[in-house]
Amino acid sequence: MKFTAPLFVTGLKCFVCGSLYDYGNVFTCPKCGIQGILDVQYDYDAIAHNLQPETWNLKPLSHWRYRELLPISPSLNPPLLHVGWTPVYDVSRLARELGIRKLFLKDDGRNPTNSFKDRASSVGVLKAIEFGFDTIACASTGNAASSLAGMAAAAGLNCYIFVPERAPEPKVTQLLIFGATVFKVKGTYEQAFDLCREACEQFGWYSRNSGTNPYLVEGKKTAGLEIAEQMRDHLPDWVVVSVGDGCTIGGIGKGLQEMKQLGFTDRVPKLLGVQAEGAKPIYDALYSGKDMIPTDTDTLADSIAVGTPRNWRRAIQQIRKSHGDMVTVSDEEILDAMRVTARLGGVFGEPAGSAGVAGIRKAVDQGIIKSNESILTVITGNGLKDIHSAKQAAGKELIVEPRFGALAEVLSAVS
Amino acid sequence: MKFTAPLFVTGLKCFVCGSLYDYGNVFTCPKCGIQGILDVQYDYDAIAHNLQPETWNLKPLSHWRYRELLPISPSLNPPLLHVGWTPVYDVSRLARELGIRKLFLKDDGRNPTNSFKDRASSVGVLKAIEFGFDTIACASTGNAASSLAGMAAAAGLNCYIFVPERAPEPKVTQLLIFGATVFKVKGTYEQAFDLCREACEQFGWYSRNSGTNPYLVEGKKTAGLEIAEQMRDHLPDWVVVSVGDGCTIGGIGKGLQEMKQLGFTDRVPKLLGVQAEGAKPIYDALYSGKDMIPTDTDTLADSIAVGTPRNWRRAIQQIRKSHGDMVTVSDEEILDAMRVTARLGGVFGEPAGSAGVAGIRKAVDQGIIKSNESILTVITGNGLKDIHSAKQAAGKELIVEPRFGALAEVLSAVS
Repeated sequence: MKFTAPLFVTGLKCFVCGSLYDYGNVFTCPKCGIQGILDVQYDYDAIAHNLQPETWNLKPLSHWRYRELLPISPSLNPPLLHVGWTPVYDVSRLARELGIRKLFLKDDGRNPTNSFKDRASSVGVLKAIEFGFDTIACASTGNAASSLAGMAAAAGLNCYIFVPERAPEPKVTQLLIFGATVFKVKGTYEQAFDLCREACEQFGWYSRNSGTNPYLVEGKKTAGLEIAEQMRDHLPDWVVVSVGDGCTIGGIGKGLQEMKQLGFTDRVPKLLGVQAEGAKPIYDALYSGKDMIPTDTDTLADSIAVGTPRNWRRAIQQIRKSHGDMVTVSDEEILDAMRVTARLGGVFGEPAGSAGVAGIRKAVDQGIIKSNESILTVITGNGLKDIHSAKQAAGKELIVEPRFGALAEVLSAVS
Repeated sequence: MKFTAPLFVTGLKCFVCGSLYDYGNVFTCPKCGIQGILDVQYDYDAIAHNLQPETWNLKPLSHWRYRELLPISPSLNPPLLHVGWTPVYDVSRLARELGIRKLFLKDDGRNPTNSFKDRASSVGVLKAIEFGFDTIACASTGNAASSLAGMAAAAGLNCYIFVPERAPEPKVTQLLIFGATVFKVKGTYEQAFDLCREACEQFGWYSRNSGTNPYLVEGKKTAGLEIAEQMRDHLPDWVVVSVGDGCTIGGIGKGLQEMKQLGFTDRVPKLLGVQAEGAKPIYDALYSGKDMIPTDTDTLADSIAVGTPRNWRRAIQQIRKSHGDMVTVSDEEILDAMRVTARLGGVFGEPAGSAGVAGIRKAVDQGIIKSNESILTVITGNGLKDIHSAKQAAGKELIVEPRFGALAEVLSAVS
């Protein structure tokens, strides 16, 4: 191997059987198959020893400031795009609307390709380079794909993307302009996923699928690390995240746990996972206490429309560990959340990106979140990514002739 | 007035007749009418005295770090959204493609509503509040509107927007979701502009039109201030900006001049203004040496499709002062620039946002830019804002049945 191994990774551990494996180009557990998602293990004592408080001010204001906590070879240069360290806003008018004391929005739509997934893709391209690949591929409902296309373009890798038929056009256009070869698979996300996995095996491409690639979720973890660092002095009671595959909330939970383990924070916020009513297999598994059962999906929030989530164990483990909970929300509630988040919080999120806000309203109604608690939710993607849904939420413009008299008439008719 | 005046503003000066006016809620010069664009004057000695090098590290990493150089009352709180301090990327592969030594992209699509215009709108809402308005309005081809809608939502102001018929749908949706009342004017940008101006006068709304509002361009200036600060140790030979109304390049030029005046930099980069072939009245005025003559417009780069630029004097003044130049580019060249910027630079810009890259290629061809020079161009808006144009540039996806055999066939057919 041309590159030295990550400094603090001690191995990988199976979520199902607990087996430990050496660090390397591995995916799921050989004993447990596709169910055996692996979790990267670190030497936290060594990390704590290396991360001295006085060195933090010298670190970049991007998610690469957490290199010690990432499975990245020290000899690799990060891609040029600025990922992470997204802004956190204290949105008092939106908090009042939702009936809570304090609400913070972390706008991950501010990442280079406008979604949270850039955190994972930026790690993915580095793993491909480290393991000697010149081509990287993934299946995605959209954001993982466009972020991979952008990061691959920045890193100079070839990129193949498999999207299901219903992927929104803005997301497909975004990845085509980055020069990726795009396969629109006549079928569901699950079929696109399977076809991509087979293509990676047969053609020798590196797989960025965050469901089964153990390193990708470590990139997602950085949102949790950032929340702990940015909110250190007023850590929220809850962190609210929309849930599709489970690796986003699982990653954020891991990051929050690590910051406690390293002594940066003295507690871990409760995690609230929010699924769409039309795609809630993880919610069902949490409440049944049984294994996840794959379902069909029916929601406009395409980024969380996952019927066969691969990381359901990771999601449930982190939610339980944080003493958190889950709720489900309807598409109507998601559209309402898009409106109030934009109008009272100034942030335009895509449906899955605003679903957290819908979940907060639901959790307040159900008594899960108390009105005196403080909450942070991550807006996971920019609303421009799915204009079709936004149009349903947004309302209509007024058509007017270019004369003042016509304008005055139109105005008096609507007011 | 409830708010104290900005600390370092000494007055406003007419671009045409040179008359000086006191600071206040003014627009164009009373003597010269709409032609008499006013320019905010500062006491730079006092600013230099207040801006000590050791205080810079304490300032926010947003464009509010330049408050001393902005016409903002010290008693106003900035809107909560994080504007400015956008990343600068050293894009070596794109530089090679364009035949130049060094190229930097400053990605202003990373602003809160995904365009450069957030710099101006964030100043605009503060001016409205300072001058006692609860409603703000503008006419815009799109980005100024959506940024104003977002900033007004964040600041809690009512917002009325006038857009011309051809404004792209993503931009209209973006401003509707922020809760603005939107008038789609059956006519051109110029007609929308005139109707908005009349409505502001008649209804007592504050006008955010950056063409005639002297304070807005000061927000745009911050991109120039940032370039000087971020690139201080390797200031580029050229700063390349696409040109519509003229106030973007005029503002950036002013910011670069101010940083030299304050002793932060020892020179000012040459400005290259880039207009679309189908909307080039400022280019024509520069080369004729005569007054600007309004024209019809015909370009897909809607953000710079301005037939009656209000700030042509400001643009030409700054270009000349910097010993710069202008070029024009075709729509085809703009689409090509969108492709290469995304594929080799990892940044997806809208047509006007990528026009600078097209202009660099043109200026190299014409011998205006030398191959050994270094260049920075500002990507002024995110490509997701105009997916229709991006689709023309992007190419097509491949349709495939969900079977490996089908995939292998499709792949061998295209490779």
